[in-house]
Amino acid sequence: MTLYGYWRSSASYRVRIALGLKGIEVEHKAVNLKLSQQQMSEHVSRNPQALVPVLELEDSQTLTQSLSIIEYLEDVYPEPALLPSDPVLKAQVKAASQIIAADIAPIQNLRVLKYIRSEHEQEDEGVKLWAAHWIRKGFEALQWIGEDQDTKFFMTDEPSLFECCLIPQIYNARRWGVEMNDFPVLMRVEDECMKLGAFTDAAPEVQHDAQPVEA
Amino acid sequence: MTLYGYWRSSASYRVRIALGLKGIEVEHKAVNLKLSQQQMSEHVSRNPQALVPVLELEDSQTLTQSLSIIEYLEDVYPEPALLPSDPVLKAQVKAASQIIAADIAPIQNLRVLKYIRSEHEQEDEGVKLWAAHWIRKGFEALQWIGEDQDTKFFMTDEPSLFECCLIPQIYNARRWGVEMNDFPVLMRVEDECMKLGAFTDAAPEVQHDAQPVEA
Repeated sequence: MTLYGYWRSSASYRVRIALGLKGIEVEHKAVNLKLSQQQMSEHVSRNPQALVPVLELEDSQTLTQSLSIIEYLEDVYPEPALLPSDPVLKAQVKAASQIIAADIAPIQNLRVLKYIRSEHEQEDEGVKLWAAHWIRKGFEALQWIGEDQDTKFFMTDEPSLFECCLIPQIYNARRWGVEMNDFPVLMRVEDECMKLGAFTDAAPEVQHDAQPVEA
Repeated sequence: MTLYGYWRSSASYRVRIALGLKGIEVEHKAVNLKLSQQQMSEHVSRNPQALVPVLELEDSQTLTQSLSIIEYLEDVYPEPALLPSDPVLKAQVKAASQIIAADIAPIQNLRVLKYIRSEHEQEDEGVKLWAAHWIRKGFEALQWIGEDQDTKFFMTDEPSLFECCLIPQIYNARRWGVEMNDFPVLMRVEDECMKLGAFTDAAPEVQHDAQPVEA
């Protein structure tokens, strides 16, 4: 299988973590978002949304949308499980994941930030306020939910789909200057994750296409 | 079970369709978004995101996020199935659903529209352009995907999770003046859906909390 992704794409980062947790080896090919390679016909033929990641299967079929890709991996490579077997807890893990994957990340996706710069005439400060606002909104809900849990990770004792979403979103939150000390539950879960190679090996800065970060 | 929703919330509308397709009866309780009831402590205790829908189970546990709720229903009431059993097709149906549920709907959610009005000083016209832009982006990808299919519904011969997402998003698209004739595949699928009571019974205007629509 081949994963088309980008080192700093948080959706690509989610899939890299899931692959690592399940011990699945894939070929990684970079789609450089800074060079707008996601909009070139070669990539659009893989994903008409012109987004990453895309998982290309052995038979050349393509899967898109990070949560769908991870749940596909869960179906085909069930161990170790990234979702609990109890239907209620499973739904709650998925819902927490969607707080990030639906209600934070798409609103501060690169294409949306480009739109508010060009159409709403937002400068760097306005873009930063925007991104941080939606991250904080989601993290506040997650902090509230997490305070009720007494598990090693967010809702489970093993890392789940949720942690695949959380760690990339925390990376992103720091880029936008969100004060993570306001979210102690999320930082505690991050500490647990960072003890695992699946998370450290998936980090943006250690990917083959990583670039030096501007000051 | 009790579904807390709002007649015009497209996420609530998705769950209503799924319940109808599976023939599950629930109590419907309205959370009036126009009166900001979703932000009152009574509702926030059900969902710290202060969003609808929320499905309250018999034991008072609560489920949030429409796609998680529908997939919970799929786990607990598997027939009729809203997801294919083939893992690849299942992932593709979920991905198409997430084009709507992650990459369209959250960006034009009420809370985001309020933000661009207040912080980006967008008037009615700018808000309409914004909403229509993100709907069109997603629908263009879906139209492209759908052109390759020869199934009765979008990717399947029976209505799926995807149609639960599509019909509310089309309703919403029309509110924002999106020209649906540009998306003939989606309109064809809509025609098939509208032959089914699960879709017509879930429509906003026939809900118990529906209000007359302003001209």
